[in-house]
Amino acid sequence: MPLDPALRSRACGALAGHYEKISMKRNIYLKKKSLEEAKAIALEVAELIHLGTETLPVIQSLGRVIAEPLFAKISSPPFHCAAMDGIAVKASATYGATEESPKSLKIDKEAFFVNTGNSIPKEMDAVVMIEDVHLLDSETAEIREGAHPWQHVRSVGEDLIATEMVFPENHKITPYDVGALLASGYRDIPVKKKPTVLVVPTGSELLDPEQSRSSLLGAPSGIIESNSYVLTGLLIEDGAEPVRHPIVEDNPKRIKEALLSHGQEVDLILMIAGSSAGSEDYTRSIIEESGEVLAHGISIMPGKPTLIGKFMERPIVGIPGYPVSAVIAYEELVRPILYRSLQLIKPERQRIKVFPTRKIPSKLGTEEFLRVTIGKIRERFLATPLPRGSGLITSLTRADGIIRIPALSEGLDEDKETEAELLRPLEEIRNTVVMVGSHDLTLDLLANLLGRSYPPLFLSSQNVGSLGGLLAIKNGICHLAGSHLLDPDTGEYNFPYIRQYLKGRPVRVIHLVNREQGLIVQKGNSKKIEGLKDLEREDVSFINRQKGSGTRILLDHLLKTLSLDARHIRGYEREEFTHMAVASSVASGMVDTGLGILSAARALHLDFIPIGTERYDLVIPSVYFQSKEVQKILETIRSRDFKDMVVRMGGYDVSRTGEELTDKSLGH
Amino acid sequence: MPLDPALRSRACGALAGHYEKISMKRNIYLKKKSLEEAKAIALEVAELIHLGTETLPVIQSLGRVIAEPLFAKISSPPFHCAAMDGIAVKASATYGATEESPKSLKIDKEAFFVNTGNSIPKEMDAVVMIEDVHLLDSETAEIREGAHPWQHVRSVGEDLIATEMVFPENHKITPYDVGALLASGYRDIPVKKKPTVLVVPTGSELLDPEQSRSSLLGAPSGIIESNSYVLTGLLIEDGAEPVRHPIVEDNPKRIKEALLSHGQEVDLILMIAGSSAGSEDYTRSIIEESGEVLAHGISIMPGKPTLIGKFMERPIVGIPGYPVSAVIAYEELVRPILYRSLQLIKPERQRIKVFPTRKIPSKLGTEEFLRVTIGKIRERFLATPLPRGSGLITSLTRADGIIRIPALSEGLDEDKETEAELLRPLEEIRNTVVMVGSHDLTLDLLANLLGRSYPPLFLSSQNVGSLGGLLAIKNGICHLAGSHLLDPDTGEYNFPYIRQYLKGRPVRVIHLVNREQGLIVQKGNSKKIEGLKDLEREDVSFINRQKGSGTRILLDHLLKTLSLDARHIRGYEREEFTHMAVASSVASGMVDTGLGILSAARALHLDFIPIGTERYDLVIPSVYFQSKEVQKILETIRSRDFKDMVVRMGGYDVSRTGEELTDKSLGH
Repeated sequence: MPLDPALRSRACGALAGHYEKISMKRNIYLKKKSLEEAKAIALEVAELIHLGTETLPVIQSLGRVIAEPLFAKISSPPFHCAAMDGIAVKASATYGATEESPKSLKIDKEAFFVNTGNSIPKEMDAVVMIEDVHLLDSETAEIREGAHPWQHVRSVGEDLIATEMVFPENHKITPYDVGALLASGYRDIPVKKKPTVLVVPTGSELLDPEQSRSSLLGAPSGIIESNSYVLTGLLIEDGAEPVRHPIVEDNPKRIKEALLSHGQEVDLILMIAGSSAGSEDYTRSIIEESGEVLAHGISIMPGKPTLIGKFMERPIVGIPGYPVSAVIAYEELVRPILYRSLQLIKPERQRIKVFPTRKIPSKLGTEEFLRVTIGKIRERFLATPLPRGSGLITSLTRADGIIRIPALSEGLDEDKETEAELLRPLEEIRNTVVMVGSHDLTLDLLANLLGRSYPPLFLSSQNVGSLGGLLAIKNGICHLAGSHLLDPDTGEYNFPYIRQYLKGRPVRVIHLVNREQGLIVQKGNSKKIEGLKDLEREDVSFINRQKGSGTRILLDHLLKTLSLDARHIRGYEREEFTHMAVASSVASGMVDTGLGILSAARALHLDFIPIGTERYDLVIPSVYFQSKEVQKILETIRSRDFKDMVVRMGGYDVSRTGEELTDKSLGH
Repeated sequence: MPLDPALRSRACGALAGHYEKISMKRNIYLKKKSLEEAKAIALEVAELIHLGTETLPVIQSLGRVIAEPLFAKISSPPFHCAAMDGIAVKASATYGATEESPKSLKIDKEAFFVNTGNSIPKEMDAVVMIEDVHLLDSETAEIREGAHPWQHVRSVGEDLIATEMVFPENHKITPYDVGALLASGYRDIPVKKKPTVLVVPTGSELLDPEQSRSSLLGAPSGIIESNSYVLTGLLIEDGAEPVRHPIVEDNPKRIKEALLSHGQEVDLILMIAGSSAGSEDYTRSIIEESGEVLAHGISIMPGKPTLIGKFMERPIVGIPGYPVSAVIAYEELVRPILYRSLQLIKPERQRIKVFPTRKIPSKLGTEEFLRVTIGKIRERFLATPLPRGSGLITSLTRADGIIRIPALSEGLDEDKETEAELLRPLEEIRNTVVMVGSHDLTLDLLANLLGRSYPPLFLSSQNVGSLGGLLAIKNGICHLAGSHLLDPDTGEYNFPYIRQYLKGRPVRVIHLVNREQGLIVQKGNSKKIEGLKDLEREDVSFINRQKGSGTRILLDHLLKTLSLDARHIRGYEREEFTHMAVASSVASGMVDTGLGILSAARALHLDFIPIGTERYDLVIPSVYFQSKEVQKILETIRSRDFKDMVVRMGGYDVSRTGEELTDKSLGH
């Protein structure tokens, strides 16, 4: 495809830039700082921020920080007032009243009707509850018990006395505080201005979400810029005022212009990307022209390329371009700057003790922020690592927590207690069913329907293959497993493996679906792939599933049956973990075909050569079978809603969905 | 003061109303419900709410709830792209390259410059880092190591594959999620509409904050309506959309009008006040006309008069009028309705183990929400109850936590572990110095200045009198105490008491201020009070301080010296706990005089008859003396800032402020 002239000229410019860069000194990091050192530097540059004061109505001040100590303007209550509906009296006038010898009081002279909150008339010092007042006529009230002074009266200043300090400066206003401020006579109060933060996304490869096409499967021509919006959200949550700059291309002149023209107007600058050691990373040299780089390269993962400096007498932070790195850099180094500038203590996330479900090695000398899913199995919270790539935003959105692996540790040991910071409320984690095993697209539909119950039930599914699921049951790290394991010798599904791997662990087996497996191929099937035998062709590339997955076992069984040799298959050793990943590899042209389910092929509009149907079951340890969570799952998969949605996806047979299967009942 | 005609007519109307009400059946509660029963009813009426859907740009969707499952529109990354700056190559073309026999590749034919995030040109399948590329000339790149397929390439869909579920319905959007949604091709998403909530404050005694005067000491003519704004703040925090109705007077017709004309437009109605058993409480009968009352009277304290019902096919909650009752009713019964309507789990507050500093009896059969301050002393969190009145909003704003005392408990035992829900972040409580003892106005200034350090230090001071402070040290429940205890026999301050009460508990004594004590009297001193002997006059009423306070001990000593008889003093037995409360009692005309410090008289513009000066010291257990918190306190009181502010208040001598005093150094 010929480049259009504008693109060509940019490409040539980039080429020249590269040529120059390669000949130049490389943009290496300063001596790497530990996270602790970097945090100290962040707090130091935070001192450059001096927030002004603005006046706001109390009723709009929620979450703002009081700029100076506030002393009550009036007392609360502002006068002696009735604490009950009734009559205000002078206590001494009631002394001696009894059932036998009641006292009569003249209304509006010796007794005054008051409702709760009404001021007590001068000279009166007690309230008799309306229930204890007997009206003789419209002018005379009779009472049959003496009142003691100040009974049922809220005395002036009982809550707040005029001139007392209501809140010190630097206090963050809660909804309760709004009440105290109004009651103490404030209508407007001085609060600190929010710290303003310029967010500058850089990168010639980026597309603004507004520019990007968003039609199904229409791949956009660049990477959608989302980091600036993630940061914007975090800034808002932290009480700052974000100002997003439009995307700036990788051009030092443009970047400098953006900083110089908008940096003056804000308290803090965040530059996204351009701070790593790549050839197009200009941030550092630009900052050095009008400021100082104080840290560049932090011993954390993700987040290493973070930079902290001063620019035009204000703090600037260079945020790495990969989404998880950007978040970690923000949370560890930008958030402390904001809280420091507001003079507030940074809130900490809830921490709980967790047990890793497997050994997790980590690089010595680097503090790692490992994203994990957390499930409560029996009395323990178990943490399972998510993929560690810093480019995977889903490793954050799917995470229940983060485990910090200290720089001096070589990793976590399986089953050895460690601490996780929670990203989700603990109650949600407690309400989460952990499913481990084979991947199937119907699990998303199940998860969605479970969330409709109340309190909602969450389904966390980890795709480690069918065998992995059975082993997870064996190891006690899941509530249930999804499995479609064919025993080649008997043609029987699942039970032979259960007998082999789950001895002494009684389970119940519930049938989920029958589904079609086959070869997923390009739309139009230009390579004319007709069946498994074509995998041996030299012009056909393949992508495999991981060992232990039911699909892999199926493939190996079929290859054996057909006397095909795995060594002749191009790509046999390259593995993906889900049907969708296989389909996506085909869709992208990376490979020609892979074995997977029809629904995955359909989802990406690919062609499909059926190989056969297989049974996918839920394997549930008997100890959990009667739990309300598992019962809710069974109720859901047996519902018409679920079955209808599954059928609509294609490639599934739900005629026996939800039936319990027993070892004997099979009989092939 | 003659009533103006309009007021008179309202007063007469109210009178007629009273007359009628008293003759009528009283507005009694339904059978009281337990909190658990009431919550079940709240969740039931929540089912009446059906939130619609609206479409919002992803970048404005923070905190909103997704209305339907969202499946990725595009994959992320949307194409195979470079994970590094470098050249894209075909791996097979590089096989065999070494330092000794490098491979040359033609630029733009066999090698293409790419930056991180750039799409990999067709046929290429690997990236060589720019650092490993050697440009021979502008058309030829040389590499000295083979590349393996897909190295430094992020493959399409690595993060998200098109058509995969990104989030299920009912998912609340975090900043991270904004990134995943943008990356998966969404610009706009369907979210649930926020539940709209009509908040109707009722009460003829109420003033809108806008109407109320807010000049210093100018008492307004009514109670400032603040509950609706507290609820508004809580509603916003809970993701609802509040609609505040102007104040409605206690008039059933007006209240009904308000509900009928605005209730249709909202999902939920909150009526503030009018649901208790008073004569002016119309809520229940109004609801019964167009709906149903399902609960009225809940066994909780505060919050008993809460009502739950249906009105025009939507939930209505009658919220009690006292501010703490209003908050508890909201949090326990309205919040669950909102979360239910949004299909979200209600977040729980952090809970910690605490030890009550004293026995706290509580009413059997009622679940009490006790507001407490919490301090960390040594390794324990100690909880001290705040005043329990439901009219005291400061019992919430000053609280660090809430202890729920179950209905079946008769209260808490001193020093017996129980659980508190935190209202402040734990880190703030950890950074709080607990001071117990005598009250002095300079402590507010100290607290304010301590909050300027970073991380801020908080001062919690409990006014229990000087002797109470020393006993708190003895019992190990505070970090320091404020004391001004005169030993009548020796004229010596504090040390004789320390010797007597703190045997075996070494302390250090730091002088804070000398201050003037005297009789606080009305402005103008119309009663012509000249000294303590006037307290025996029949026309002079007095207010005392509590036993164990330094001021009480001083008074009793002076009375003895002057041979005055406490029994002749009108009001000797009525006690207040602070100088400001004494001054406020005088200012309000409740009493003629009380003994207190000059600064309190000045604060409320009262006259003052000096009696003498006294020494106020800080008593600090030696074990805490070297702590950084105590050292920060000493640094602060020794600062020019602090002393200047104290002097400006009047009645203080700071010439020896901050000096350490020793038992010997005194010598009277």
